[in-house]
Amino acid sequence: MKAVILNCTLKKSPKVSNTEALIKKVVKEYKKLGVTSDIIRVVDYKIPFGVSSYEGKGDEWPVILKKIKSCDILIIAAPIWFGVRSSVAQLVIERLDGTYEEGDKKTGQFPLYGKVAGCIVTGNEDGAHDVAANTLFNLTHLGCVVPPNVDTYWVGPAGPGPSYIDAGGEKHLYTNKTLRFLVHNTTYMAKLLKKNPIPTNLKELINEAQKESE
Amino acid sequence: MKAVILNCTLKKSPKVSNTEALIKKVVKEYKKLGVTSDIIRVVDYKIPFGVSSYEGKGDEWPVILKKIKSCDILIIAAPIWFGVRSSVAQLVIERLDGTYEEGDKKTGQFPLYGKVAGCIVTGNEDGAHDVAANTLFNLTHLGCVVPPNVDTYWVGPAGPGPSYIDAGGEKHLYTNKTLRFLVHNTTYMAKLLKKNPIPTNLKELINEAQKESE
Amino acid sequence: MKAVILNCTLKKSPKVSNTEALIKKVVKEYKKLGVTSDIIRVVDYKIPFGVSSYEGKGDEWPVILKKIKSCDILIIAAPIWFGVRSSVAQLVIERLDGTYEEGDKKTGQFPLYGKVAGCIVTGNEDGAHDVAANTLFNLTHLGCVVPPNVDTYWVGPAGPGPSYIDAGGEKHLYTNKTLRFLVHNTTYMAKLLKKNPIPTNLKELINEAQKESE
Amino acid sequence: MKAVILNCTLKKSPKVSNTEALIKKVVKEYKKLGVTSDIIRVVDYKIPFGVSSYEGKGDEWPVILKKIKSCDILIIAAPIWFGVRSSVAQLVIERLDGTYEEGDKKTGQFPLYGKVAGCIVTGNEDGAHDVAANTLFNLTHLGCVVPPNVDTYWVGPAGPGPSYIDAGGEKHLYTNKTLRFLVHNTTYMAKLLKKNPIPTNLKELINEAQKESE
Repeated sequence: MKAVILNCTLKKSPKVSNTEALIKKVVKEYKKLGVTSDIIRVVDYKIPFGVSSYEGKGDEWPVILKKIKSCDILIIAAPIWFGVRSSVAQLVIERLDGTYEEGDKKTGQFPLYGKVAGCIVTGNEDGAHDVAANTLFNLTHLGCVVPPNVDTYWVGPAGPGPSYIDAGGEKHLYTNKTLRFLVHNTTYMAKLLKKNPIPTNLKELINEAQKESE
Repeated sequence: MKAVILNCTLKKSPKVSNTEALIKKVVKEYKKLGVTSDIIRVVDYKIPFGVSSYEGKGDEWPVILKKIKSCDILIIAAPIWFGVRSSVAQLVIERLDGTYEEGDKKTGQFPLYGKVAGCIVTGNEDGAHDVAANTLFNLTHLGCVVPPNVDTYWVGPAGPGPSYIDAGGEKHLYTNKTLRFLVHNTTYMAKLLKKNPIPTNLKELINEAQKESE
Repeated sequence: MKAVILNCTLKKSPKVSNTEALIKKVVKEYKKLGVTSDIIRVVDYKIPFGVSSYEGKGDEWPVILKKIKSCDILIIAAPIWFGVRSSVAQLVIERLDGTYEEGDKKTGQFPLYGKVAGCIVTGNEDGAHDVAANTLFNLTHLGCVVPPNVDTYWVGPAGPGPSYIDAGGEKHLYTNKTLRFLVHNTTYMAKLLKKNPIPTNLKELINEAQKESE
Repeated sequence: MKAVILNCTLKKSPKVSNTEALIKKVVKEYKKLGVTSDIIRVVDYKIPFGVSSYEGKGDEWPVILKKIKSCDILIIAAPIWFGVRSSVAQLVIERLDGTYEEGDKKTGQFPLYGKVAGCIVTGNEDGAHDVAANTLFNLTHLGCVVPPNVDTYWVGPAGPGPSYIDAGGEKHLYTNKTLRFLVHNTTYMAKLLKKNPIPTNLKELINEAQKESE
């Protein structure tokens, strides 16, 4: 089992990323279950804005997309800014739009069909529900399955304040609980779906729908 | 396989419900796959505001909750009002909060654990993504699994306008496509999970998390 | 200057409302500026679901609506449930839909045109931005003006936990700051708009738009 | 009166921007009222991710920020992607975070205090309410005033489809109405606030709040 975890911090390496600190705890739990993790810090790559899988010379998105396509579990890890997901997380979702064009010839299923999704969110305050809800929902549109309790987040109380690392977030019970739920449920579901891939033939259903819509 | 579909229209029977018109198309497709559907028009019941499973004498929520607990597939069907889900849909989600208290003694899994969720949305305009994203996300917190492409919606173009029935929404290709995806993917996943229930022991993971959080 | 504050808690009187505890601090600051406040606990009234200003016999919404129409400042105070505003707050917004039908004969301005809006949010955790953003936005559609920094909220850190009163939220600096910003900016703006009402003639602009849209 | 309109399309010049087509209609109406507009296509500038007003050598954000600081009306024009605002719009909001650090020495008011905000949204489908609600709300946090009816948007019906230009959106009545409301209400409010700037002394209120929070 392979997990790809996209760290959507705004800060390039080697700056300290609070999101990465939480990611590392997730990775540690995945390891216990035999799942290997590949953490990708998106902002370290040159990714132009766009909605295709290749935006021309110098575009490094294909490197990331290749890894995404070969994983079993896809985790978006995003900081909150102004109550919603970071621009880098939004950029990632926009670039994934290109995968809609790469449907399977027979079934029409997109490349992410049947992969399992999860979400990691950090912020010094409020916004985690909005980030997780939109991100997981977008991933279901792209083909992913969302098991129960696969969002883990840390935020402090109302208003600006210290972030995950400085606030001692690593001792926060709710986050430590939910990250384990995320790891166990994504892993179980990924194994189950590997053995029992979703058979739905989207093309056939589209044909049916077209007849009904004439 | 049994689907419970909660119609969260604001209008009591026998008023015409656009949401119901779309629900009926979903039910028809479920029938083809041998899935029986139980449509519940929530506003026809006396459901007080609250966050428990029983809010005292006269509360009819237990009737609905019992059906929810015995289904395989749970569909929230909600109209959009002011860009978000209807108050009745929000009321339903709030009342489901009570199920958190009814975890399995051994695993801690809540009553909705492993059920499969979907979402139907209608509105004369804009807001479907917000309704579906929040609703499906809330249902994953409560224990549900969300397969790919299990939201189907109809909305007209920007601004007020005719609703689903009057606008001829039943001929809208996108809606007719996505309702089929919803039906096929929820059915497949529900069968798969019935044979292979999620084994995660939440209680054990909470214990682990507590040790780490001291 | 008169402020109407709608407490959208799910709990009927005389149950303790955390939202009310924060409202009372707002009221105290309004008093210092000579603004009188009228707190309405919505759930104590019999308000049917609907989108008109009168839903038939027994509907007590007209009592509240009358107060709303005569205020200068309208504050929606809402608890967070499942990351979004309470069903009671959503019900209030839905019922305000009816005011669109009551536009001024000459200008087309709705009854809430030029009133000043604000928002108070409480929850034991995450969701305040979503509640405030949607609520204030909806109120601008209905005719209200939103000054800077007119949302005040209290939430605890990630996950379930004690609410405003038990958590000692009344000592939380960010909330105590922002409630003052809310009070001062809504009061200033309400006075300014009373002397200088928005003159926009919506009917004329609609006529213009119709010509362009033919 | 000066309006700055930030076009947050993902597409660099000279590609056709649907958002720009709608912007131009807004500009035309502003001109009738004597308001000059400065359209900035953000993606044509080199703007690194970040939350400060200057992110180091090569950062062109200061050029845009200078224009924002000198305007009376600030309009964010954003396409919808995956139901929410574009990554470029999110990037703009994140970069504005830096202005919190540049408060007036006496009053503590941020550089955007008292400017008037509006929002233009285009997408081939659903998401306009979410984009406008979040964007206008974020701008109130940064100091802007939001008059009634200052969001104008165009979206097509449910699902993918032609965009504003190809769909003949320029003849869409709702959009043509609301863009006029936006122009008239932002202009009136900007003039009113220029003569009557918000006097709130944030520093004094913070001092008061600190005493209460000890």
